[in-house]
Amino acid sequence: MSRSVVAAMTAYTLELREAEVKLNQNESPFDVPRELKERALAIAAERPWNIYPEFESSALRTAIAKANGFAAENILAGNGSNELLAASIATFVGPGTPVVLPKPTFALYEKLVTIAGGSVIPIAIDPAIGVLPLDAMLAALKGLDDAVVIVCSPNNPTGGVLPAGGIDALLATGATVLFDRAYGDFARDSQPALHDRLVTLSTFSKAWGLAALRLGWLATTAATAREIRKVKLPYSLNIISESVAIAALENRAYRDHNVENAVAERARVWDAMRDIDGVTPFPTQANFILFDVREPKRVFEELCARGVLIREYANALRVSIGTPEENDRFLDALKEIA
Amino acid sequence: MSRSVVAAMTAYTLELREAEVKLNQNESPFDVPRELKERALAIAAERPWNIYPEFESSALRTAIAKANGFAAENILAGNGSNELLAASIATFVGPGTPVVLPKPTFALYEKLVTIAGGSVIPIAIDPAIGVLPLDAMLAALKGLDDAVVIVCSPNNPTGGVLPAGGIDALLATGATVLFDRAYGDFARDSQPALHDRLVTLSTFSKAWGLAALRLGWLATTAATAREIRKVKLPYSLNIISESVAIAALENRAYRDHNVENAVAERARVWDAMRDIDGVTPFPTQANFILFDVREPKRVFEELCARGVLIREYANALRVSIGTPEENDRFLDALKEIA
Repeated sequence: MSRSVVAAMTAYTLELREAEVKLNQNESPFDVPRELKERALAIAAERPWNIYPEFESSALRTAIAKANGFAAENILAGNGSNELLAASIATFVGPGTPVVLPKPTFALYEKLVTIAGGSVIPIAIDPAIGVLPLDAMLAALKGLDDAVVIVCSPNNPTGGVLPAGGIDALLATGATVLFDRAYGDFARDSQPALHDRLVTLSTFSKAWGLAALRLGWLATTAATAREIRKVKLPYSLNIISESVAIAALENRAYRDHNVENAVAERARVWDAMRDIDGVTPFPTQANFILFDVREPKRVFEELCARGVLIREYANALRVSIGTPEENDRFLDALKEIA
Repeated sequence: MSRSVVAAMTAYTLELREAEVKLNQNESPFDVPRELKERALAIAAERPWNIYPEFESSALRTAIAKANGFAAENILAGNGSNELLAASIATFVGPGTPVVLPKPTFALYEKLVTIAGGSVIPIAIDPAIGVLPLDAMLAALKGLDDAVVIVCSPNNPTGGVLPAGGIDALLATGATVLFDRAYGDFARDSQPALHDRLVTLSTFSKAWGLAALRLGWLATTAATAREIRKVKLPYSLNIISESVAIAALENRAYRDHNVENAVAERARVWDAMRDIDGVTPFPTQANFILFDVREPKRVFEELCARGVLIREYANALRVSIGTPEENDRFLDALKEIA
């Protein structure tokens, strides 16, 4: 039967609800340009579908490296950054490995650490501050051998970021740092310098608006990339998603528009939420806003009833930044019911 | 740094070589019908690419269930059967779990067991017999608690199959059985009955000729599927591959043609190889033939030099069944150099 750690787990799931305004998964609110779709699909139609993809996704890795100032040997491409996160955790986390992570955060981290037999050391986040608890993380790491840190900045779902110099301070403890910058584009951050103990995970699902195609990548030194490659499944990226990602990298304008919309609308929505009695939005540099509200369960359901689907947490709600029209629908509904 | 079990591993890799006749990865030699490509891509173009796939790939799971006489709750769909194999191993194999597997076999099994901390118990295969060593597997399982068996039938790369009743005999030991029927279509086998301790892995990469799209599925009881779902990554199947698989299931004729070609040509190629002095093909029910030859390294290289790429193992060679023309190219070259 299934292992005891698996039997004790609950499945990661997300209730399916239909909604006119979908602001629950931090997706880009804009579909990619039709022209990009057609170009990528025309390339895909010409390629043989009966033949395995190239072993290493070399063409995409080369394109990602070029776009980000790295060499192809520094890049692994995968079926969503989730796959690369799983491979990174399996590379560095074994039975008993201490894993420090701010909490609340993306639920998949803890699940993957549990599967690997690692031991999670959660560090509480105060979402009102807008900054991740670096000092507490550093204190927790003191004296730990072969520790791993997983940090998402801006963090999902709280929105806060690591303070400047945070990655360097974490690396200075001797820990291996898995840095998820899924939302980094919305904070106008940049890729940190490569380090043998730093793995930076990026995605095409957010700013690039390609969540449906499952595309992610990681950057690290060639030596560390070789280790993770041993664990990663071969041929994990299908040829169509790969063609789309290459076409997207040649067409940055729509991605820049996504980021500009998210940054501008985030400020507008945040200010409007702050002015609603009983609503407290937390500081955010991502494409979503976590907020406190009286009776979050009721507010979540009544937003749903008005066609606006957001995300419910234990004591707070999270709304993704949509188009200006979608955001207005959300704000109008929230004003009515909060 | 990477865990000791990872540091000690070598990367699974496959040397890239260009060849006019590619018979090295057991792919279908026929691309899928143009009409199927166009229909699936037209559906894909209309769907939003900025929105995550549905959490569970319900539409595809339902289509697979219907085509195979199961319910959707018995099916998990994934990014190639490799992904589902990895999730199944992570569900059942932990530190110290004994894992019995015939050897040689698909190298990924041992790699994934090693990552999970399991302990491989290899059972030697004699490829000349054409049947997997069921009795030796049963003997090895005797007295083991919580053991796992991984068996591929027809086995890659040897081509032999489990004897009739083999799955039931393995289940009777109390072990959990991971049964890879990637090549089962070429043996005209059928899906075994569901059992809580049996996970049957299937792929669209071989008979369905969709290796480029990374599509696999597993069948088991609803209870066991729920356990594996806890470990499997969410949203692992992109919407385009999913659309293609659904379209393929509605268009079985090309798949049946692939199987008929492989079965007929396998017999023809096998007989022709047997008649070449110094060449010994082993019995096979798959879409490939493992064979002995004097100086396999030289034969492999000289086939390459003649534009025919096959697969090299330590002491033998494996050739995939191609189109009649490709197979003739292979046989003509082999006659010259063996």
